[in-house]
Amino acid sequence: MKTELSAFFDRVRPAIEATLDGLLPAESSSPVQIHKAMRYSTLGGGKRIRSSLCVAAFAAYQENWKPILPVAAAVELIHAYSLIHDDLPAMDDDDFRRGKPSCHKQFNEAIAILAGDALLTLAFEVLARSSDFPADRMLEVMSVLGRAAGTRGGMIAGQVLDLEAEGAQITAEQLEKIHRSKTGALIGASVWIGAYLGGAPEGDVERIEKYSDRIGLAFQVIDDILDTRDGKDRDQKKATYPGLHGLEQSQAIAHDLTEDARRAIAPIGKSAGLLVEFCDYLETRTH
Amino acid sequence: MKTELSAFFDRVRPAIEATLDGLLPAESSSPVQIHKAMRYSTLGGGKRIRSSLCVAAFAAYQENWKPILPVAAAVELIHAYSLIHDDLPAMDDDDFRRGKPSCHKQFNEAIAILAGDALLTLAFEVLARSSDFPADRMLEVMSVLGRAAGTRGGMIAGQVLDLEAEGAQITAEQLEKIHRSKTGALIGASVWIGAYLGGAPEGDVERIEKYSDRIGLAFQVIDDILDTRDGKDRDQKKATYPGLHGLEQSQAIAHDLTEDARRAIAPIGKSAGLLVEFCDYLETRTH
Repeated sequence: MKTELSAFFDRVRPAIEATLDGLLPAESSSPVQIHKAMRYSTLGGGKRIRSSLCVAAFAAYQENWKPILPVAAAVELIHAYSLIHDDLPAMDDDDFRRGKPSCHKQFNEAIAILAGDALLTLAFEVLARSSDFPADRMLEVMSVLGRAAGTRGGMIAGQVLDLEAEGAQITAEQLEKIHRSKTGALIGASVWIGAYLGGAPEGDVERIEKYSDRIGLAFQVIDDILDTRDGKDRDQKKATYPGLHGLEQSQAIAHDLTEDARRAIAPIGKSAGLLVEFCDYLETRTH
Repeated sequence: MKTELSAFFDRVRPAIEATLDGLLPAESSSPVQIHKAMRYSTLGGGKRIRSSLCVAAFAAYQENWKPILPVAAAVELIHAYSLIHDDLPAMDDDDFRRGKPSCHKQFNEAIAILAGDALLTLAFEVLARSSDFPADRMLEVMSVLGRAAGTRGGMIAGQVLDLEAEGAQITAEQLEKIHRSKTGALIGASVWIGAYLGGAPEGDVERIEKYSDRIGLAFQVIDDILDTRDGKDRDQKKATYPGLHGLEQSQAIAHDLTEDARRAIAPIGKSAGLLVEFCDYLETRTH
């Protein structure tokens, strides 16, 4: 049976795709190769979890969620840039991404580096050009996104810590920090931004903040669990929750996190229904 | 004899340096290695031409130029990121930068890629946090900077075209396009942003736009001339103005550009004196 969440995501995904398609420079425009690479690595793949969550949080406060699409798409551009750079030989050295050759395999390393740079630049340009929200709110959004993508508890911090941890013995605390920064921060920011631009009242923003924090971490823990169960070994050098805590304990941790997330937004009531359902979705993935 | 311009730049440079120092995360903060790399590649070197021009344009309209410093520093962060990525083995493969090992030689390739990403991210975060100017103006600044750094006539476009042109026969028109986008766009944006945030009246903004365009290109043409005269051969594969037009003709082109720039801002009068002097400075470099 289709849940309300999956029906919602099924409507949002093509809208995100169309928005990205419109924001990315045409393949025919000069310099052709970089625009091809940007489109190759951004379009036609990916679950669009971050942008869909952003839209879902916005939709908790606004019936018409069209205005948030460029903002949600910008988050997706940042995610796409990070995947291109993560895949580079000097980083995780992955030849495949989303079932096709990674950007540097399909094009070359120089183009892959520049395509990542360009997607990150474009994300901020798109946000700066957005005129559907008050300018001061957009600045706040860009500041939050910059931090979530950056080196102080953000995505780049996570990638650095992750590279440093390869093959090393790390503590549970360190692993949580890696996951929180590498994946949690951007997912958390996506939800927060949606609620904030949707006009969530002050009290709700705090609730959403707590929710975002928990599901951001839960998402990566569950990804670890799935990778382990599927016997994916390409990341054997990487520290994971099942590797450190065992599979059962990892599931318990994921359960506690999603429970915590549910509780945090319970006072918001029916309008946050999709966000509650997302907790269910995360948990069912592990069963 | 010290010109007014060099006296001004001598006062601005340490202020930019101090601003950058304050904006960059401390070396002691986690993850230590990335913060070390960011500071290594940003501080203690560079002529700070872009940021100084930004301050000079601002100073044409405001006596107190302190408020523009974080904005000017953000431009310098973007410039620093571009140098780190340009130096990577997959790109220009340069082992030295500003007289010391380039970032990937001093640290490693992964850290260099991430440090570049982090400086670009930080630049936009700094601009988003700036509260000295109206929010809508800051959004316009970020949009202009994003475009100047991006793939449609911006810095990344220039880098792609430059890589594509290596060893190839290119036309004068193509070379102008490379220089305009690779160097001209960001220099032009720096001047424009300074004048715009300084509150230049509409008519002046257009004059400054023309000026920025001309000196942006002139700067790179003159850089080419100096490199050729100094016998720098590390970029022999790269297309240059003297390589295509000869030394004398290149000087004539540079002269025409700076003359054009001077003429464009002549109606602004005395307050734009520093910007006029910058044209003199550029030209004297070639003599």
